[in-house]
Amino acid sequence: MLLLFFLLLTSFLPCNTSHPLDPLTPSEFSTIQHTLKTSHLFSSSPPPSFQYVGLADPDKTDILYTLSDHHNSPPPPRRAFIILRSGHKTHEVILDITTKTIVSNTVYTGFGFPMFNFEEQTAASNLPFNYTPFLKSIKKRRIKLSEVVCTTFSVGWFGEVEKTTKRVLKILCFLTGDTVNLYMRPVEGITIVVDLDVMEIVDYKDRLVVPVPVAGGTDYRSSKQRPPFGPRGKPVEVVQPEGKGVAIDGHSISWANWKFHLGFDVRAGAVISLASVQELEHTMYRQVLYKGFVSELFVPYQDPTEEWYYKTLFDAGELGFGLSAVSLQPLTDCPENAEFFDGYYASQDGSPMKIKNVFCLFEKYSGDFAWRHTEIGIPGRVITEVRREISLVVRMVSTIGNYDYIVDWEFKTNGAIKFMVSLSGLLEVKGTSYTNLGQVEKDEDLYGSLLAKNTIGVNHDHFITYYLDLDIDGYNNSFVKAKMKTVKITDGSSLRKSYWTVIKEIAKTEADARINLNSEPPTDLLFVNTNKKTKMGNNVGYRLINHGAPVASLLSDDDYPQIRAGYSKKQLWVTAYNKSEKWAAGLYTDQSRGDNTLSVWSERNRVIKNKDIVLWYTVGFHHTPYQEDFPLMPTLSSGFELRPSNFFESNPLIKTRPFKRTEWLNCTHNP
Amino acid sequence: MLLLFFLLLTSFLPCNTSHPLDPLTPSEFSTIQHTLKTSHLFSSSPPPSFQYVGLADPDKTDILYTLSDHHNSPPPPRRAFIILRSGHKTHEVILDITTKTIVSNTVYTGFGFPMFNFEEQTAASNLPFNYTPFLKSIKKRRIKLSEVVCTTFSVGWFGEVEKTTKRVLKILCFLTGDTVNLYMRPVEGITIVVDLDVMEIVDYKDRLVVPVPVAGGTDYRSSKQRPPFGPRGKPVEVVQPEGKGVAIDGHSISWANWKFHLGFDVRAGAVISLASVQELEHTMYRQVLYKGFVSELFVPYQDPTEEWYYKTLFDAGELGFGLSAVSLQPLTDCPENAEFFDGYYASQDGSPMKIKNVFCLFEKYSGDFAWRHTEIGIPGRVITEVRREISLVVRMVSTIGNYDYIVDWEFKTNGAIKFMVSLSGLLEVKGTSYTNLGQVEKDEDLYGSLLAKNTIGVNHDHFITYYLDLDIDGYNNSFVKAKMKTVKITDGSSLRKSYWTVIKEIAKTEADARINLNSEPPTDLLFVNTNKKTKMGNNVGYRLINHGAPVASLLSDDDYPQIRAGYSKKQLWVTAYNKSEKWAAGLYTDQSRGDNTLSVWSERNRVIKNKDIVLWYTVGFHHTPYQEDFPLMPTLSSGFELRPSNFFESNPLIKTRPFKRTEWLNCTHNP
Repeated sequence: MLLLFFLLLTSFLPCNTSHPLDPLTPSEFSTIQHTLKTSHLFSSSPPPSFQYVGLADPDKTDILYTLSDHHNSPPPPRRAFIILRSGHKTHEVILDITTKTIVSNTVYTGFGFPMFNFEEQTAASNLPFNYTPFLKSIKKRRIKLSEVVCTTFSVGWFGEVEKTTKRVLKILCFLTGDTVNLYMRPVEGITIVVDLDVMEIVDYKDRLVVPVPVAGGTDYRSSKQRPPFGPRGKPVEVVQPEGKGVAIDGHSISWANWKFHLGFDVRAGAVISLASVQELEHTMYRQVLYKGFVSELFVPYQDPTEEWYYKTLFDAGELGFGLSAVSLQPLTDCPENAEFFDGYYASQDGSPMKIKNVFCLFEKYSGDFAWRHTEIGIPGRVITEVRREISLVVRMVSTIGNYDYIVDWEFKTNGAIKFMVSLSGLLEVKGTSYTNLGQVEKDEDLYGSLLAKNTIGVNHDHFITYYLDLDIDGYNNSFVKAKMKTVKITDGSSLRKSYWTVIKEIAKTEADARINLNSEPPTDLLFVNTNKKTKMGNNVGYRLINHGAPVASLLSDDDYPQIRAGYSKKQLWVTAYNKSEKWAAGLYTDQSRGDNTLSVWSERNRVIKNKDIVLWYTVGFHHTPYQEDFPLMPTLSSGFELRPSNFFESNPLIKTRPFKRTEWLNCTHNP
Repeated sequence: MLLLFFLLLTSFLPCNTSHPLDPLTPSEFSTIQHTLKTSHLFSSSPPPSFQYVGLADPDKTDILYTLSDHHNSPPPPRRAFIILRSGHKTHEVILDITTKTIVSNTVYTGFGFPMFNFEEQTAASNLPFNYTPFLKSIKKRRIKLSEVVCTTFSVGWFGEVEKTTKRVLKILCFLTGDTVNLYMRPVEGITIVVDLDVMEIVDYKDRLVVPVPVAGGTDYRSSKQRPPFGPRGKPVEVVQPEGKGVAIDGHSISWANWKFHLGFDVRAGAVISLASVQELEHTMYRQVLYKGFVSELFVPYQDPTEEWYYKTLFDAGELGFGLSAVSLQPLTDCPENAEFFDGYYASQDGSPMKIKNVFCLFEKYSGDFAWRHTEIGIPGRVITEVRREISLVVRMVSTIGNYDYIVDWEFKTNGAIKFMVSLSGLLEVKGTSYTNLGQVEKDEDLYGSLLAKNTIGVNHDHFITYYLDLDIDGYNNSFVKAKMKTVKITDGSSLRKSYWTVIKEIAKTEADARINLNSEPPTDLLFVNTNKKTKMGNNVGYRLINHGAPVASLLSDDDYPQIRAGYSKKQLWVTAYNKSEKWAAGLYTDQSRGDNTLSVWSERNRVIKNKDIVLWYTVGFHHTPYQEDFPLMPTLSSGFELRPSNFFESNPLIKTRPFKRTEWLNCTHNP
């Protein structure tokens, strides 16, 4: 009988090896849905609405124990974390999937509300079409209702003192007409507020009529283009004559000297866990990153007027960076050699939903070098050694309304991880009566740039904050600021009068690790394990290298959006690991008041020296639009990398052999 | 008769169209050599030594006139600029190549000396092997003379007041033995000074004996590696199923919406001229960059001790960034689809010398996007449009002794030019008795990092300065600082308390255009043509975007190397165009005293508003070595781009059609 039970159990296992950090599967989502629907939580009417469903983080110590030498120990319990909205209340539920039992159910009573789900945003967007004052406003503007499309915006928080129980959204409408580029044709002047829990318009204002931009020539679809066509080179395609170098086992990836786990979360999008890099001589893998993901995207617009002031968006916490992920298109979004992964999330009623091709993964060669040297110093000889750089990229693209965020995680054979964010997509524009800058008395009053007739591209920022739980060669790490400091020589001991030296400061508490790089002296930012030293006696570590200018928020400290995103004044924070501290702007970001955010946690000023630490790094963009960004912006990129710095005893790539290559390949298209 | 003359003239034209900016050809070098050798300049003995030979810059107005609508006007005279060293004097010669006449010959009497040529460096490196005190020093160290290799270093200037007429170099020696990685095995403690004009050792000191590092395992040659081999993925190769998109006519390149001229100069390396970008609707090309090249490479080491203090190198001005360029290896240094160009220079006796494959040029696809958008805002539809980014890269690699500099000029279809510098190659290391950091009392006394037994990687900087003569849509341009400034709202006119706005400051004189980005508020750095406006009324322009953290020199202002490279305290300078101001650290950089450099020119404080202006931008690296950099460093990159910003009326790539692609190609290696 027991044997039969085991046989049944194993027959349910998927063909791929499962991992305790695997994201919830479709059948797990169904189990969760069924378990909750048959519980007391669903006895009320209307039924609760699912706002978030994801894997409840197993305890880090359990994971590390299971994955170390204790493979035979039972995996940590498989649990889900669920946020429901029911009866104007926010419920947090922990559910054991294996036993199909509710482990805990608490009502959240703090500030802020959970992520919006798709269904309620769609329902809210449809409300104006049956709302008489709106129909009158459209008629007044002499535009066709059939060409109107509406979309939702979070309302933010602007100093209201009393606690609100109302989840509200604002609705903005656009004209389509001949173009699919609706964002270029805002119907300005109307304010519509919807209460989501009752799904009703609760406030409506039609303040002023602004011309809707004509937006001729803004349709970006290939099929709509007429000659002369835009510039391009000849196609360049990539091939892998020896096949692909990546091994995929479920969500576990191994490639070259890397292995890591790739999960999907509806809020964070890609979650990279247990990234570790191989020690060549010992075939042993050494930990680098316990867990990393995009924690928040803060996008404050810089226009204080009635219809724009509130646009201070938290795209991950309010809309879901994973929920907004697009299905990647093979051969365009990713190169020919890409592998694809699907993602799953729960809909409003808890049903499993699939995002096909939510990630792609490919080996990249961009013509760059891993290393090279030509030696002519030895008489009579010329030695040239070159190694091409082949890296591995994990890609996700999230489209938050008008904007497209391309997020690449690039694993390099030298041991580095490069984090790049690229922006594309459409600008958020504002209608105006101006048709030429000559008509404008004071440029600053535009709060942006005149990009086309009746069209202002509004100034704004993008702050993409990464959560990076570093475990560099072990659990306890330290943050070291290696400051370059000028030393003046005044004693005549050298013909030089100065040089710079490196003064290393180890951060003792969180206060020592709040850094705006723009106001620091030149500093190497090191994350080290002081418990492990190289043979030479250096602390084993990684360092952070910028691939763009560091950017910080310019809002005043007392401004409400700034209070909600206090962390955005510094690019770098290091905190003591705390399982509950995952979201830089707080778990409940919609209408949040900044009381449970990264900068507040850091105020506790915990010890971070030789502790389990988390690095928070923000990639930022100040975006003053230019005409080239209209009607759709060319990609703009920024990012950073974490690079081994005394992690290895020497360059791990010296022993890498070059690729054998004879000449140009003969290629034919498949029929 | 006149007709016959024309026929004769045209029959002399090479098959490729010649261009007035073409670099000197081998036959032109021979003409120059012959003309000079038969002149009075060569009547003395020993014969003069050629230090520099290159195209004398034609007047910019002549070039612009010839290339505008006046194609039938005669080209400017074809002239060479030559620097000779003769009788302890530096001669500047202008020679008309067509008429084979010396136009001018002047003796330079200022500070500093010309670039070293290869032959004199080699001769100097050989001197110690016949110098008895050196042979004794080698014997004392119990090392094999047959394994010793010597190389040369410039001596710098350290406050000597009297003018010197002595061109001197210092010699450093290394041990090879089992390895070709000689730089890891310095023979420390010996100072050798050579007078180049008489080719004699004029100073010799053997101060101390330091262990020569064993440097086991530092040979980087593939053939010397033994298992386990280093990590790598599977090869990724690029193919172009429709052929290459670039058209090459002599030195003139056209590709997609770009055309430009690519020349070689023995000092600067790649010289990009007349880069202009096409206006889609009018098929007209609009100017962007009149001329651009790497003007200087300043590499100050940060060790004030006797054997190291003077290492404050000006790699372009002293050694020639072009002279140090390597022959690029097809299929390793450049991708499969690369085209190659040769470069020519004059040897010490004026003979033409060839650097085969000094540049390569290839269309690049790295998996990135020109732009993309997914639209789900229109009910019932999902629209996805994606354009791959294919760009054109011009590449040169210069190996200055131990270091390899990879310089890429990337032309993008969006109108941007991206300037990237990548560092690889070997570190400059110092022998030491230390074998573990535990033995070191004060880390700072190492002036670097302990990388291996008896081996210190010395702290240093790299400052790569670009000369960019911008002609954005015409001759007269202006530099605008578009500063983002926080505005506080105190009148209750908005629920917001702040926003940022853009205050544009136009630089009137050179003093307004000396910028250390680390001490500026967030600023868009714009280069505009105020005489041309878009239809919307914006000034036509480009802006500078950083792809790395801005870096500036940390030496004290009164330190001699800093005086020689005064410009290195600011990343950005804008000067009024002056034909003679090309080299940031001066034309005569060896033993220079900083009196004829960028920062000095800028002190004239000329008007730069609505003038022909030159942008000088420095890409910098503070390099504290880490063990991974030993024995050969993984590539480290930084750079910037110039991107159209109100140059076009809208995104020029919207009308670009996607590449047609069906599926993965079938490829076979050629037999």
